[in-house]
Amino acid sequence: MSFSADDHRFMARALQLAARGLYTTDPNPRVGCVLVRDGDIVGEAWHQRAGEPHAEPLALCQAGARAQGATAYVTLEPCSHFGRTPPCADALIAAGVSRVVVAMQDPNPLVAGQGLERLQQAGIAVECGVLEAQATALNPGFIQRMRVGRPFVRLKLAMSLDGRTAMRSGESQWITGSAARADVQRLRARSSAIITGIDSVCLDDPQLTVRDPDLLSEGTALQPLRVVLDSHLRLSPSARVLQVPGKVLLVTSDQVAPAQLAELASGSVDWLALPLDDQGRIPLAPVLQHLAQSCQSNEVLVETGATLAGSFMAQGLVDELVVYMAPTLLGSDARPLLELPLTQMAQQQRLQLTDVRHFGDDLRLTYKPLTEC
Amino acid sequence: MSFSADDHRFMARALQLAARGLYTTDPNPRVGCVLVRDGDIVGEAWHQRAGEPHAEPLALCQAGARAQGATAYVTLEPCSHFGRTPPCADALIAAGVSRVVVAMQDPNPLVAGQGLERLQQAGIAVECGVLEAQATALNPGFIQRMRVGRPFVRLKLAMSLDGRTAMRSGESQWITGSAARADVQRLRARSSAIITGIDSVCLDDPQLTVRDPDLLSEGTALQPLRVVLDSHLRLSPSARVLQVPGKVLLVTSDQVAPAQLAELASGSVDWLALPLDDQGRIPLAPVLQHLAQSCQSNEVLVETGATLAGSFMAQGLVDELVVYMAPTLLGSDARPLLELPLTQMAQQQRLQLTDVRHFGDDLRLTYKPLTEC
Repeated sequence: MSFSADDHRFMARALQLAARGLYTTDPNPRVGCVLVRDGDIVGEAWHQRAGEPHAEPLALCQAGARAQGATAYVTLEPCSHFGRTPPCADALIAAGVSRVVVAMQDPNPLVAGQGLERLQQAGIAVECGVLEAQATALNPGFIQRMRVGRPFVRLKLAMSLDGRTAMRSGESQWITGSAARADVQRLRARSSAIITGIDSVCLDDPQLTVRDPDLLSEGTALQPLRVVLDSHLRLSPSARVLQVPGKVLLVTSDQVAPAQLAELASGSVDWLALPLDDQGRIPLAPVLQHLAQSCQSNEVLVETGATLAGSFMAQGLVDELVVYMAPTLLGSDARPLLELPLTQMAQQQRLQLTDVRHFGDDLRLTYKPLTEC
Repeated sequence: MSFSADDHRFMARALQLAARGLYTTDPNPRVGCVLVRDGDIVGEAWHQRAGEPHAEPLALCQAGARAQGATAYVTLEPCSHFGRTPPCADALIAAGVSRVVVAMQDPNPLVAGQGLERLQQAGIAVECGVLEAQATALNPGFIQRMRVGRPFVRLKLAMSLDGRTAMRSGESQWITGSAARADVQRLRARSSAIITGIDSVCLDDPQLTVRDPDLLSEGTALQPLRVVLDSHLRLSPSARVLQVPGKVLLVTSDQVAPAQLAELASGSVDWLALPLDDQGRIPLAPVLQHLAQSCQSNEVLVETGATLAGSFMAQGLVDELVVYMAPTLLGSDARPLLELPLTQMAQQQRLQLTDVRHFGDDLRLTYKPLTEC
């Protein structure tokens, strides 16, 4: 199917609007809608927060009677089911739009196409696929959760040019500059959850919160769920991760007794107990499955040390690798980027570079791990 | 001093011409000249090869009588002494140019300004400094050799994202792709000398020559001097570095007896014997001094293993670090980028990122080491 320049232009606008929900729609997808009649935009909107109206009824409301005969550009197939709001497909039909262009189908294979079908049955011209790649890129987590029941996992690392994260002693603070750290705040703000390991919590006592005043002043950023992998429940009740706003999910061995959690228990701490794997470690795939299925987590950020980060990579559970590289050499005795013991070139983990960006003096490199052929 | 748009435009043209000599002028600097009369270019040229005419007389020859009253744009102060060719300042005077604009003074502090003075004394208007930074960047080696008697040292490294160069076993071939390797050929072609260590020669048996057909088909690329640091003379007579076109400089301990060199001796092998340092290694600064002062080496490329590369870095002898980074992870057991044992963050070697470029799937990152404040 080929689309006109106008179709591209108005869908680009809808995507731009959708992106305004980057930090706020969770667990819903980011969606934008533009209504066009006779070449003019007569209504435009984006979904802002779960429980609040979707993009389509907001745009329709703005357009009023001018929606009659208009073309609706929507970045995601309009819903056809009753959720917390009525179906958007019905709203578009009721308003009398004559054509609906969507960037992509609903990613849930069980419902994909049903919204479009409903529109078609009402006599509306329906087209799908304009700027689909861009629409997909806007909701990697929601799409992956709907399609395969797993969140989109982004592994964030900060290192020196020579691939080191800290001195052997553990000394490590401030490898990267303030612009890179501000960007990490944005990664956190778009994530549903942040996963870390108990070793990192003991070593650095991080807050793992969104604190950037610009993000908070939007009044919108949600605090991601903080997930601490702590097989033997070593977490201190005074850990900062427990003191700050937002919820915590503690993942332990199923051998940990509920009573042990008593002193940590508060309204904001949830508990997931799992049988440990052969090597006595928390199995990662079930944690991700739990996050997708029980917590509706779309994008998950892994911010942790070399050992846990290496396990995520070795188990093929990383969808995106974001590396902040500082212009410095920490030397050959310093700590490695990832604990990833490989002995032959054939075992190397190939990556695809998808983005390079400057943040102050640092570079941000984004990679997609490639699966072996 | 402020220059006109025309001054910038014509000097940019002169620099562009000068750059055509990138691979051929050694040990001379790359120099371009443009002659302009009434807004038109009446002659332009660049220095091509040592022993052949400089840029100024070539451009004057092209301009003929039109040089009378013209402005000459030259990327480097015209020479005022008799070398292998007569002084260019005299040629400009004889041709009757009325104004000379140069990008930079002669970098040799003992002669700087004398060419300009000679022109001024002949009644010619002289201006200096237009696009000076660009002119400086074109001849980093020549300038450093003239100013401080040391070549410009460029350290080339190839690594994985996690800062590794090879598996622990030494397995390493083809970390980077063909586009990156082709670029290394260009780095070699612009260098006066390539320094490597005997360990690298024993392990990889490299040729260290310019072999890219595009560079050779220009009929111009000089083979850089291959410098092998080999304190105890372990070099095999069958090493490829001895079999290929071009000269070799063998640097050994002064305890090596001349007779030991007999079987390696040929017209193309020179020998430098130096007292070893406290740690029984060849001292690097005297090697560089020798290259500048006895071999007229401008730019030197260091292509070697982690140990020798680490020594160059640790001793503050690197002017530019060129890192080709492949999109792959070799893991935490693999070999480090540089043998550089540091224990505290305060010892880190800070760098300044000066260029980022894609070569196929690889990134080329160029850094300038920063000296401690």
